[in-house]
Amino acid sequence: MNRICPAAALRQLAARQGSNVAAADAVTTTVKRLNHVAIAVPDLPKAATFYRQVLGVSNVSTTPQDLPEHGVSVLFVRLQNMNVELLHPFPAGSNASPISKFLERNPRGGLHHLCFEVSDVERALEHVKQSGLRVIDEHPKIGAHGTPVAFLHPQDCGGVLVELEQVR
Amino acid sequence: MNRICPAAALRQLAARQGSNVAAADAVTTTVKRLNHVAIAVPDLPKAATFYRQVLGVSNVSTTPQDLPEHGVSVLFVRLQNMNVELLHPFPAGSNASPISKFLERNPRGGLHHLCFEVSDVERALEHVKQSGLRVIDEHPKIGAHGTPVAFLHPQDCGGVLVELEQVR
Repeated sequence: MNRICPAAALRQLAARQGSNVAAADAVTTTVKRLNHVAIAVPDLPKAATFYRQVLGVSNVSTTPQDLPEHGVSVLFVRLQNMNVELLHPFPAGSNASPISKFLERNPRGGLHHLCFEVSDVERALEHVKQSGLRVIDEHPKIGAHGTPVAFLHPQDCGGVLVELEQVR
Repeated sequence: MNRICPAAALRQLAARQGSNVAAADAVTTTVKRLNHVAIAVPDLPKAATFYRQVLGVSNVSTTPQDLPEHGVSVLFVRLQNMNVELLHPFPAGSNASPISKFLERNPRGGLHHLCFEVSDVERALEHVKQSGLRVIDEHPKIGAHGTPVAFLHPQDCGGVLVELEQVR
């Protein structure tokens, strides 16, 4: 989940990551890995119990990480090949959280979005838009992991809410 | 996706995989990896184009694999750390496919299920039932990959349809 960040923050991040416009121009959108599956849940401790005790995942975070700027609390289910992120509205009961409406429609919770890794999210976003697909984020934002992200429109992605996250 | 298989087939498979009852008894349910994310799609070629041309995934199968015994056609989107499986009813337009109702409710398609790997699906299934959770498959079946699988009830898994697949 994410919020719009100042362009300056993105530029600073790009500079830290050694990005530059010339390099970005040469990058094509090439997804190689799924970063995480996000699941909206009505009860974080109950969901954590399912993954820890029923499925026996050894690395499930015990304390939710509150991300007020993103309107969610997150518990991480860390698997060997990727992560599952359990999302709950923050503050609890908030109607302003980006997952509030989803939980209204799906009170038991459910699969919320897939996050794929790209090497340059700005370039990827341009490619998506040039392909004629609608996007939710016209420009990258800084996501919950502190990296640039952008969400694509689920109606143009086979009904799946797709997040692209810049990972180098 | 799967169908019930004769118990003999499961025993044969277990024997080929070197399983035995004593070993199975010692295994706990320990999920370490996500095997795949399954997405139900109304149009396989269109979905493949999204993953191949928009997201730039290099390894997207070009020809659907028809699995009549499972009521689906599948296209594989192979990523470095796991697979995305695009599912469509087989035969096309079939109302008997296990994903037909899902597509009726979600005509644009959507996230259908998560498949986690376990070392012993029979033992895992027992553990799930002993934990008080409902399951869809009371006993393991042979799944689309030729391995024992079982589906758990989404209402007891935070709204997520969960498949357990035996992978050694």
